[in-house]
Amino acid sequence: MRLGKTAGPDGEWVVVERDGTAYRTGFRSLRDALSGGVVESPDAAFVEEIAVQSAEVLLPPIDASSKVICVGHNYRDHILEMGHALPDHPNVFSKFPEAVVGPRAPIVLDPAATSWDWEAELALVVGRTARRVDTAEAAAAIAGYTVANDVSARDWQRRTSQWLLGKTFERTTPLGPWLVVGRELDPRDGLTVSCSVNGVEKQRASTKDLVFAADDLVAYLSTVVTLNPGDVVLTGTPGGVGSARSPQEWLAPGDELTTAITGLGELTNLCVAEAPR
Amino acid sequence: MRLGKTAGPDGEWVVVERDGTAYRTGFRSLRDALSGGVVESPDAAFVEEIAVQSAEVLLPPIDASSKVICVGHNYRDHILEMGHALPDHPNVFSKFPEAVVGPRAPIVLDPAATSWDWEAELALVVGRTARRVDTAEAAAAIAGYTVANDVSARDWQRRTSQWLLGKTFERTTPLGPWLVVGRELDPRDGLTVSCSVNGVEKQRASTKDLVFAADDLVAYLSTVVTLNPGDVVLTGTPGGVGSARSPQEWLAPGDELTTAITGLGELTNLCVAEAPR
Repeated sequence: MRLGKTAGPDGEWVVVERDGTAYRTGFRSLRDALSGGVVESPDAAFVEEIAVQSAEVLLPPIDASSKVICVGHNYRDHILEMGHALPDHPNVFSKFPEAVVGPRAPIVLDPAATSWDWEAELALVVGRTARRVDTAEAAAAIAGYTVANDVSARDWQRRTSQWLLGKTFERTTPLGPWLVVGRELDPRDGLTVSCSVNGVEKQRASTKDLVFAADDLVAYLSTVVTLNPGDVVLTGTPGGVGSARSPQEWLAPGDELTTAITGLGELTNLCVAEAPR
Repeated sequence: MRLGKTAGPDGEWVVVERDGTAYRTGFRSLRDALSGGVVESPDAAFVEEIAVQSAEVLLPPIDASSKVICVGHNYRDHILEMGHALPDHPNVFSKFPEAVVGPRAPIVLDPAATSWDWEAELALVVGRTARRVDTAEAAAAIAGYTVANDVSARDWQRRTSQWLLGKTFERTTPLGPWLVVGRELDPRDGLTVSCSVNGVEKQRASTKDLVFAADDLVAYLSTVVTLNPGDVVLTGTPGGVGSARSPQEWLAPGDELTTAITGLGELTNLCVAEAPR
């Protein structure tokens, strides 16, 4: 079962796809859909059957009010190959929701930044309110998983100690296409995360290699702040980013970025230039 | 003129105080009030006169949807006394809105953290949508100013490179009591920011000493993301924090934290312990 969001003349709607058919629900936000039990009782949310192809689910499966939480340095092989010790704690930062775009939307490269890089990531979406939960409760609070690319302006990210601004340029972070319900897959089994630029593969790794798994992250974050249905956690990127290559490689307007995770789907996003002010 | 928020049995309301009288407006959010022109046409927002003393404005003058943006290392004397060079760019991070509490609310010290510190700060509140604005436009986009204390769990802030989690524990950041409309004062003239713990002064500085002034910050941030009415920017703290003292000093349950800025008002918050899980 997968959840997505579509927009029509009458606003945004949450859609459900399962067993090859798709239908519109009565929910306008992912938070309401998840709080309203769409995962546990999907039949009760049925409003009308529709033809939803993957390509038509054009909105990211989160809400404007969702927290967007990100984790750095979380793939074991990549950390070790860089010569670092495995971390004791997740390195956590955030984005504002304005950074997030849909699975087929353009990625807007603002000319104020010069070093645009890719970061393919598994993202988890919270399904139930979680505060100070243990790992087992955290696992039950995860609605499912989706695909994200934490596209980063490295020059802005690194001009001070805090990464936020290099991570939160508007319309830079594709996410989607579907929220795949978690009981149907487990990232610990090893989902393959990959990223290509203009058809040339740049990243490939398995989610088996995550230092902090999805439930670990939810439990840890819930120590600090309440996680609500629809909040999303980007779990970190593996090796192969442009800034770690020799010579370094950056995204440019006209590049096509493809981000895929087995069992979850694919993002295809064209990089475009924001017109200078 | 000052804006505040009160809560009653019928929900939250924005209130206006000027010329010694206070009245309730028809606006339920600060964003709607500012977008609706309450600063330019306060008479049009009048609903009913009420007795609002400063102590009764118990909610922070922002919304649950407000971005809470913070700046580190922004007081000239403090940076130089620490032996650092003045920064070329603001060091920017964020909090989730769940961190913010009202001007008289308890500050909840979670036992998961051990090193709770104070950071008295001038906060600006955005009054008009701002995206890619210059400094003059940024100045016009600021609704006004209020008082904040960026209370920080230093152990969580410093266990990784990114400060977010140490800065965003729920119910730790008092803000208020009023949003004082900006045309009535200019931080460049030098407002005195001070912080006391149990009546003993720990911080005292002038906003004249800010490296990046309020309009500089709004212009810079608007390069990256749209600032909306009700979004708030905490402009950084001066010297005198507990972690820079010898020996270091931390807040503990039972401590009373007082944060004041001349012309803006005062926060008085009791530190309390969160019950362990």
